[in-house]
Amino acid sequence: MARVTQEHLDARRRQILDGAALCFARNGFHATSMQDVLKEVDLSAGAVYRYFSGKDELINAIVTEVLGEIREGFEAAARQSPPPPPDELVARVMGAVIEGKRAVVDNGEFVFPRLIIQVWAETLRNKELSAVVHDGYSSVRAAWVKVVQGYQDAGMMRPDVPAESVARTMIATAQGFAAQMAIFGTAPVEVLQEGLRGLMSMGSPDART
Amino acid sequence: MARVTQEHLDARRRQILDGAALCFARNGFHATSMQDVLKEVDLSAGAVYRYFSGKDELINAIVTEVLGEIREGFEAAARQSPPPPPDELVARVMGAVIEGKRAVVDNGEFVFPRLIIQVWAETLRNKELSAVVHDGYSSVRAAWVKVVQGYQDAGMMRPDVPAESVARTMIATAQGFAAQMAIFGTAPVEVLQEGLRGLMSMGSPDART
Repeated sequence: MARVTQEHLDARRRQILDGAALCFARNGFHATSMQDVLKEVDLSAGAVYRYFSGKDELINAIVTEVLGEIREGFEAAARQSPPPPPDELVARVMGAVIEGKRAVVDNGEFVFPRLIIQVWAETLRNKELSAVVHDGYSSVRAAWVKVVQGYQDAGMMRPDVPAESVARTMIATAQGFAAQMAIFGTAPVEVLQEGLRGLMSMGSPDART
Repeated sequence: MARVTQEHLDARRRQILDGAALCFARNGFHATSMQDVLKEVDLSAGAVYRYFSGKDELINAIVTEVLGEIREGFEAAARQSPPPPPDELVARVMGAVIEGKRAVVDNGEFVFPRLIIQVWAETLRNKELSAVVHDGYSSVRAAWVKVVQGYQDAGMMRPDVPAESVARTMIATAQGFAAQMAIFGTAPVEVLQEGLRGLMSMGSPDART
């Protein structure tokens, strides 16, 4: 039996996940069959099922991986004192995630934002996926709360707003920006960065006199 | 032939749109049939087809109506000098839209955010709906650009960020917040308001020394 390196196993796993992501982005999770995935990655059923038991395991792995990357980006920021300001931080983490997903291209179109919409739609009827998304999102939110507390501790942000609300709002900007990319086409992450910078410059309403 | 008042016609139209919105939110646009809509609103085919030729006209009417309300909310704000700050404005417009959609409740659950996700998913494969969403969104964005220019003219926001980027970012916060409500359950719009208030208090990165 041929020796298979870990590197080879990882590359194969990556190939399968990216191919499945393409299929899900294109037609949605529900309308995609494992046959579609096998055809897309051009591997035998045996080769694919060695890694993943089926569609559910594939989509769960894709979502867990991406939300894990996002969480790590914000956890790293929370360890800095003070953390980088939101405009820089969102652009950095979102830029890194997008960069890591450059393989998910269909006919020249970057389809990762479409995949996000398909995942959201599927969570509306898929309890297992909903739980996976819920867990991943909770961990991203917890990381963002630490970042916000870092801002507040450093006197960069008024201390009387709940960190949880700011965390949810920051995540909302990234989610909404992804939705816009899915519906209206890719846009540079600098658009979001500039928008946040403008918003940050407004000052506290209570501080305006 | 009985005389039918405009009021009656409007109420009937409203009833059909809300029933269709419920169906689309529940199962998605694609999996909903006109039979499902007729059953939901408990009207005859003749009564419903008098108002709408089919599913496409229904979903287009729903999307056009909601995006029109949102646009009007921001256009009214743009006419104020200076416009209300973003935290107040977003909460006001979003609150009014949610209030107007209180009828769209399924088993006690407010399903309007789910409808938004279903519409986004459907735009990925429905060119006509995609065009309707695109037009509606462009008009909301144009209204937001005027609001942002109002902030900049009044010296409330740094003038060197493109108004277009701020407009897209503000819309993204509302879209992302809607997505969170669809996936994780309804949340008070005050969460978004507090989050924006925190962000606004950070000051311009370039102004921090």
